[in-house]
Order: sequence, then structure tokens, then C-alpha cells
Amino acid sequence: MRASRFFISTLKEAPSDAEIVSHQLMMRAGMIKRLGSGIYTYMPTGLRVIRKVEAIIREEMNKAGGIEMLMPLVQPAELWQETGRWEKMGPELMRVKDRHGREYAIQPTSEEVITDVVRSEIKSYRQLPLNFYHIQTKFRDERRPRFGLMRGREFTMKDAYSFDRDEASMKVSYKIMYDAYTAIFNRFGLKFRAVAADNGAIGGSGSHEFHVIASTGEDAIVYCPTSDYAANMEAAEALPLAAARAAASAPLTRTATPGTTKCETVAELLKLPLSQTVKTIALTVEKEVAGKQVLENWMLLLRGDHELNEIKVGKVPGLAAHRFATEAEILACYGSIPGYLGPIGTRQPVTIVADRTVANMADFVCGANEEGFHYTGANWVRDLPEAIVADLRNVVEGDASPDGKGVLAIERGIEVGHVFQLGTSYSESMKATFLDENGKPAPLQMGCYGIGVTRILGAAIEQNFDDKGIIWPAAIAPFEVVLCPMGMDRSEMVKTEVESLYAALQAAGVDVIVDDRGLRPGAMFADWELIGVPHRVVIGERGLKEGNLEYQGRRDAEATAVPVAGMVEFIKGKLSQ
Amino acid sequence: MRASRFFISTLKEAPSDAEIVSHQLMMRAGMIKRLGSGIYTYMPTGLRVIRKVEAIIREEMNKAGGIEMLMPLVQPAELWQETGRWEKMGPELMRVKDRHGREYAIQPTSEEVITDVVRSEIKSYRQLPLNFYHIQTKFRDERRPRFGLMRGREFTMKDAYSFDRDEASMKVSYKIMYDAYTAIFNRFGLKFRAVAADNGAIGGSGSHEFHVIASTGEDAIVYCPTSDYAANMEAAEALPLAAARAAASAPLTRTATPGTTKCETVAELLKLPLSQTVKTIALTVEKEVAGKQVLENWMLLLRGDHELNEIKVGKVPGLAAHRFATEAEILACYGSIPGYLGPIGTRQPVTIVADRTVANMADFVCGANEEGFHYTGANWVRDLPEAIVADLRNVVEGDASPDGKGVLAIERGIEVGHVFQLGTSYSESMKATFLDENGKPAPLQMGCYGIGVTRILGAAIEQNFDDKGIIWPAAIAPFEVVLCPMGMDRSEMVKTEVESLYAALQAAGVDVIVDDRGLRPGAMFADWELIGVPHRVVIGERGLKEGNLEYQGRRDAEATAVPVAGMVEFIKGKLSQ
Repeated sequence: MRASRFFISTLKEAPSDAEIVSHQLMMRAGMIKRLGSGIYTYMPTGLRVIRKVEAIIREEMNKAGGIEMLMPLVQPAELWQETGRWEKMGPELMRVKDRHGREYAIQPTSEEVITDVVRSEIKSYRQLPLNFYHIQTKFRDERRPRFGLMRGREFTMKDAYSFDRDEASMKVSYKIMYDAYTAIFNRFGLKFRAVAADNGAIGGSGSHEFHVIASTGEDAIVYCPTSDYAANMEAAEALPLAAARAAASAPLTRTATPGTTKCETVAELLKLPLSQTVKTIALTVEKEVAGKQVLENWMLLLRGDHELNEIKVGKVPGLAAHRFATEAEILACYGSIPGYLGPIGTRQPVTIVADRTVANMADFVCGANEEGFHYTGANWVRDLPEAIVADLRNVVEGDASPDGKGVLAIERGIEVGHVFQLGTSYSESMKATFLDENGKPAPLQMGCYGIGVTRILGAAIEQNFDDKGIIWPAAIAPFEVVLCPMGMDRSEMVKTEVESLYAALQAAGVDVIVDDRGLRPGAMFADWELIGVPHRVVIGERGLKEGNLEYQGRRDAEATAVPVAGMVEFIKGKLSQ
Repeated sequence: MRASRFFISTLKEAPSDAEIVSHQLMMRAGMIKRLGSGIYTYMPTGLRVIRKVEAIIREEMNKAGGIEMLMPLVQPAELWQETGRWEKMGPELMRVKDRHGREYAIQPTSEEVITDVVRSEIKSYRQLPLNFYHIQTKFRDERRPRFGLMRGREFTMKDAYSFDRDEASMKVSYKIMYDAYTAIFNRFGLKFRAVAADNGAIGGSGSHEFHVIASTGEDAIVYCPTSDYAANMEAAEALPLAAARAAASAPLTRTATPGTTKCETVAELLKLPLSQTVKTIALTVEKEVAGKQVLENWMLLLRGDHELNEIKVGKVPGLAAHRFATEAEILACYGSIPGYLGPIGTRQPVTIVADRTVANMADFVCGANEEGFHYTGANWVRDLPEAIVADLRNVVEGDASPDGKGVLAIERGIEVGHVFQLGTSYSESMKATFLDENGKPAPLQMGCYGIGVTRILGAAIEQNFDDKGIIWPAAIAPFEVVLCPMGMDRSEMVKTEVESLYAALQAAGVDVIVDDRGLRPGAMFADWELIGVPHRVVIGERGLKEGNLEYQGRRDAEATAVPVAGMVEFIKGKLSQ
């Protein structure tokens, strides 16, 4: 490519609505252009990166037996009604009516359509397994689109769907996709981590997220540096901090704690470690019993320094449909304002669930169900009956790894991929069956597998940038190499060498751009550092007279002289690293 | 590719809603699958063809200096309101509201967005010319979607937009695109014709359509076999059939013609050639004069055997906003029912426009403005004053070519491309200006250039099929070559040769599929003939024992024995033809 035949448009300043570095740099580098809230035009430089990301995904998906097709953007409402997602998805699902008043969804994902395709195409177990994928524009009407391509409304996603005859075979298909994703993210040249994830509301039995590691990431991901355990915060299991409960050593004492409704202030007042305190969270579960609405009172106990994990709460039997208790409900049940609740002496019957760590505490501090008072020296059995024990909290750095092979560390990540064992939830609601070996209809076992193509760009930048701009990994850079001639219009020597090197690099299959725009060196270098091309070669008369060109990698502090004759091999060497 | 890792799903019968051959064959070959009215999933085989079409377009667009980018599907209503197309486009424009009630269009084309991009990016004439293109999904809510991919609602289009400093430069950009389109359609391997087209309502000064020639085409296209004149029916100029008017030789005679309201029956009754008759078409133009509505009466005269061309009528000065007169208006103006109207003796003043051919007629027959009567022997000047003369009719086979270099022929075509000189209509309404050499703002001169990517598939099939199925040109075939092994599971000799030939063809860059599904030969051949792979090689033990393979081109009546060792070169030779 010649820059004069390309469109390069860089900015000194990012627009004020660009809050994070990847959004700022993509705007400044002229890779994207805002059309509306969460809607961007992919400018020529940005599109080149997208195409490289797509090409890598496509190659690895094909290698893994995926079959590419393309499902429509505009999808009939009837299919979404079959699975109930027409209602469930709420305003995030963009809906549109045609001239005849028929309703359609603009696809946010394609489980319904692929299941519809497959239920009419697949008759027999002999046709299985199958894995279909497409790379397609998606639309999700996010409540608050932000961060450029990170949380846009219109975006590009690769979504794949596997179909198997039984669960064991589905798990094999899942593993193949897991491995393909690992290959894909390795080829991108990004630091990433696959973590176990919660299956959420979709159901199914297994799921992993692929996160690009970046200190600015929205998600906390948990891993064990001395084993291969990794999970996202929702799914990371927290073990009890003490293996067994210590014996009671202090008497239960009602203690005045005026104006201290938080564990931190209670601990400070009582000069006790925060880890000696227990916080109480009151929940309500609404139930219908014999046609009448009944409210159940539940109480969660968490160590004062721990954070509640709501996903885990929802998995406690009986708490799938809980909500936080209202202040009125709390007063009625406990006779106290929030901040002084505790498991000892409640007015009304309460089901108590203690976090695993709380279940093994002794001599702890908790609210006394009376404004201005806490108990100290509280002990299980002696002062209150054993409670239901469950994992309720987020893990913290230094927790024991659930696999017993070390302690946990936490880092930040950006979710860019997700593999998911769907099981039969879609095939059952949409009656997608096949005939098994015995000629009996059985629902298809499904998996689904997504990669946020356009989000990869944002994530890659959040991981790879400096104060000059973006630093693309070569595999997904808009160009691998930029040639910067010094005074191409004045020097025949420079011009000849530029053309010869350009031709030689192209012949070697290198994706190279010549900056023939005639800019001053400073402006030229600033553009390419901002755009983030990983390898730069400067062609100048001074160097040429000594038989040299100047090479500088985007992360290098300074340039290296490389003999003219060896430059193509030198670049090929750099690109194969 | 191995068929066992691909998805092939053919049907014996096409669904009943598939009216035309390309729709039937694409459904039967499993290339597309209907999701809703005018909305199709592109199945794996169909997507391969689409990708090949896109790749050829992309290569030639890049060669011609086009710069690829990607504009969003969901586009803010405000931009469409700036050009007035939000109203003008009517129900064909699919509109959607987001969760905040803001309105958007799902793009049917992207003039507004590209003009918005360019007006903020282009400051100076130094940045021009520019040509941006994208290949993107489009949606048009057709009133009656039909014919599969030919007139779908969701489809893929390549649209390009050129920006220039002045009209002369815009015409250069236009010519470059015209030539690129010619290269593209040549590479597809399709018989096509570029024809001059009417500019229609968009305005601008020049336009050509690219038609794939097919007897089933919706459009009539006009060309001169002995020159390079070609136009679509709307734009093809009709010259007068006689160069000069003959002298009057018959007297004007009021003749009884009871029950003959059509030229055909009048000619029959009077035993005159149809070409001696003139038909009269009454139009009304509604005008506001000094705040009052005024109706103007117009009359068009056409030779009895000619067809009216409504596009041409709209170009007659004063007739831009005409409509056909109602029966009541006709009675009031002429005192007669339709079928007996004529230019002689009207009750009210009428502006008469005669087609060029009618203007040179003598002794003609026309209505007498009285039910049951016609005039014979009507002659200009003697019987009625000279009228306005204009080209009002469709050309017919055998008409003189407007370039004076022969006679016209007519064939059927399918419009698959359109190049268009837009001029400044969009840049003026959207205030897209640049600073010229004198530092003065001037509106950008634009051109737009579309190719219906998915429609190409339908058009290619309408041009290339037989009773067995599709016959793809190799350049856009889903696979160039299919290898059909006979008894691969029984014969080690066959298996070895198949694998060796497969590897050798792949190494030679041939897009080859091995049918390793284990089907009977008949079923296997029928599938590939239906799908339309242009080259087939059969590998069987009998042939191998004689050192031969069997080659058969999709259009060949029978197979040819080709020595094993020469097959790769043989295929390469076929593909380079």
C-alpha cells in the first residue's frame, strides 16, 4: 500500500467523550468515527485490523471443523418468541416492524436462527456432530454505550454453534472450540487467560470466558499462579479461611456501639480486627403458597472484610429469586434499623445462611438487632444454632486456590470470548430433535461460542500502548511494516531504494505501507507511532551512503542500522518472532 | 475441502414459492435457506460463492484506487432528514427506534453517512480525489420481495462513493469506476452489457447500468450490434421512423368505427396497416396559479404500434409532474369516451405533444372525439396545427441506432451494477464542501457506484444452468473442482490416488473438494451437477489400472480419459481458459 492511495487521518486530541485509552487512541489514529451513540464507522485503518482479526478467527475455526455460513441480521420475532427471549431480553433487543406490521429482531446473537436451520436440516445422528459459525454484525441496544468499540451497540461478532448427539460428544465439541480459541488468541499475539465462568441464566453445564489481560479491564479474574486454576470473580470458589472452627473463648456480650452501622467503624470502636466482625444482609423471597403471597425472611452472614457475590447467592437452594429486604421488612422482622442486624434473637423466624468462612469463626462480632448495640464474643452452637453454610463471597488475593495447589491472585481482564455448553435448553424449546441409533427422537445437545471481533481491537490497545500511541501485535496490525523515506522527492537514491525495498517486502509476503505523502519526518513518525505499526524502516541518503537503513521496532527506544541488502531477511526475522 | 467436513444438503424438489430458475436451483442446491419474506440465510455453499464475488470486487476496487471502510447498518434519522430521503424513501426505508425513542434507518445505501464522514474529514482540494467503498448488508423493505436473492429485502451490496473537486475530475473518477466494473464483470466470467441509463430522480448528469444477459431478465436492454451503443429501455433514444413527412394524399374523412376503441381493431376494420394509426393519451397537469388549482390538458400522440415510455414523458418541458387524465376529465375536455380521442377539434384547449414518428406521418388515422368515429386521412398543417415534437416511445428491434451506425437489437438483462454521476446534490444538501485553490468553499462533486453482490448469484444462474442444475463460471464457483472417488472405502488404489491428487491440486492453488461421503456414483454426480461445480474428476479402479482418470466439464456431454500424471496440468489448463 502507498499512503498516498490510502486514507490516513490522525488527530492531536481525542474527543472529550472518549474516556478510556483505547477509545481515545482509536479516535486519534483515525481508525473509527462516531456516527451515533455506540455506533461507529470503521475507517480504512481500523477495518484493516478487523479483517486481520477475522481472518485469523476464520482460519482457526475452519481448522477446528467449523463450517462458515451467514445468518440474517433481521430475524422474525416468532423465533425469538419460541424461546421466550423476545420477552426476556427486554430493551437490549432492538425490535423493528416492517411495512406490513410484522415484527423482527435485529440480531444480538443467533441461537434461535441456527436452531431453526438445524431442526429442518438434521434428521439423523449420522449427520452429527456439526459446528456452524458466522462472522456478522450484531446490535444490542445497551442502556449506556461507552468506551468506543468496547461497549458499542453495533459491533461484529463471530458466533459458532455446535450440535451433538449426546452430552459426552457435546463436551468433545466444546473442548475443540476451547482449544481453537486458545490458538486464536495466541495468534493474535495478546496476553490472555481462559477462566471458568458461571453459566448464568442460559443454563447448561460448563462455560469459559477468554479475557485479554489489561490493568484497565472491567472484570476481575482470578487465577492460581502455581496451577492452571482460573475463573472469573462470579465463578471463583472461595474456601473457608480457617479449616476448622476454634473453640469459644469469650462470653457473648451485648456492647454499646452507637452510630456505628458498618463493620469497619464497629471494629475501630471496639479495637478489634475487621476480620473478627460479621455483617448481616437481609433478603426477602416472595412466594405464592396456596394462592396467597408469603414473604420469607433470609439472612446472609459474611465476614466484615468480605464482599458479597450475588451470583453465588442465587445458587443457594431457595434463593434463586431473592431480593434485598426493604427497610420496612427489616424493621418488622428484626425490630432494628439496618446496620445493627444479627443472627441472634430475631423477632420473626429467619433462615440463616453463613458464608463458609463465617461458619468457622469463633468469638465474632455481630449486630444485636437493636439500634446502637452489637454482640461481641458470639459463638456458633453456644449462642446460636448452626446455619446453612454456603460459598457467598468473592475471593480475595491470597485465598487458597480451590484446587489446593497454591494461593489465588487477581488481575483485570477484558472479556473477548466465551465458550458455553448450552445443553438442550434451546433444542427443547424449539423442538430441534434428531433420530438416534434406535430411531427415537432426541433433542440436540448444543454449545455456543462467541468472539467479540471489534472488541478485540479495544482490548488489544488497552494491553498495548504507550504515550505515543498504539502498539499493535504484528499479526493484527493494520500494516506490519511502514517505510519512511527521508526526502523522497529530492533524492533519486532514496526513491530508488524505497521502491526496491517496497517491492522486495511485498514479494516476501510482508504487509507494508510506504509513506509517500511527503510529510516532515516528525509528523510522519508521530502518525505511525500513533497508528501503532510495529516495524518502521527509515530510508535516508545519509544511511544509504553507508549502505544502511534504519530499523526501529515500535517498542524500541532507538533505531538500529541494518545493511540494505539484509533488510528483507531482517524484517522476516522480526515478523517470525 | 472434504465433503465430510462440509455441509451439503440438496433437495429433489424446490419449494413452491420459488418461481424462477435461479431461486429454485439455489434452494435445491442448499445454497440459501429462507428465514422470512425476502430474508435468507446464506448456507455454506452459497456463502463460498458470495465470498468469491466479494474478493473479485475488492481486488478490482483496490486496483482502481478505492479505499475500503465499513459504514454502520443502523444510521441516525437526522442524516436522512438532511437530504430529505427520510420522507422521500417511504416504506422501503426500514426504520427503527432505540430504547430512548431515537429514530434510525437500517441502511438501504450509504450516501448520507459517507457524505457526513467526508464533510468532517475533507478540508482541502489537496485531499481529492477520493473513492471510498464498503461491502455491507443492506435492507430494503420491498413491497413484494420475490425471486430469492434477486429481489430480497436483506442483501449484500458493494457501494462506492467518489469525491472530486470539479465536474471534469468527477467524470474521470466515474470513468475509472466504469472500467473497474467492466474488469469485475469480465472476471466473474459472465456475459454482460453496460448500458446508458436514465438518471432518474437522483439528478446528476450520467449513469450506466451493468446487466447480466439472461433471457429471463426483468429488464429490456437495447444495443446496436454494429456499434457500441447500448442503453436501457428507459434511456434508449427513438429516432423518427421516417426522415421527413410525406405529402397529404387522402382527404380528411370522418369514418364510422363502432366498438373499436383500440388502434388494432380500428386498423383491422378499416383494412389499414396498424402503422397508419395514431393513438392518443390524455394527461392532466395540476398547477397552482395565484393560489388557485388549475388543471392543464395535455395530449400525447403515439403511432398505434408503439409503446409509451413514461420516463421520456416526464422529461418533456411542463410534464415533470403529469398524471393520466381521469375519465371525467376526458369527457369534459373532449366530449368523448377514451378510445375515440384525437388531436382534431377538442372542446377545450389542449397542449399536444407528438412522438417524433407521429410528427412525420401523413394520411393517418386518429380518433374524432366522438364515440364510434375516427378520422382517416389526417394530415399535419392541413387538418391540425404542428404540435410539440418529442421522443415519447420505447424503441423496438430494427429501429435506427441513435449513433447512426446500424439498427437496434433488444435483449433481456438483469441489473447487477450501477454507476452514477451524482454531482453536488448530496454535498449541497449536506453542506459537504472543501476549500479550492483560491481558498473558497465549494461543494464536493460526487459519484456513486453499486454492485448487488448477492444478486450476482441469481443473475449468474439465470445465465448459466441446464436441466441438471447450476453451471458456475469457475471464478465464482463454490469449488473449482470436485474429486469423485469410486469406492474409496473398498479400494486402497483409489484412496491413495484421491489423496495424492487432492494434495497436488491444493498445492497448485486449486479450490478443490473431495466427495468422501461414500455416496453411490449417481447420487454423488447429481449433487455436484446440481451445485454446479465446473470441473469433475472421477477416480476409479478401472481407469487407474489403465493409468487414467476421468475428467468431465460441467457443460461436456461426456467424460474424457486423462492420464493420472497429467491431471494437475490438465486442470490448470482448464482453469486458465
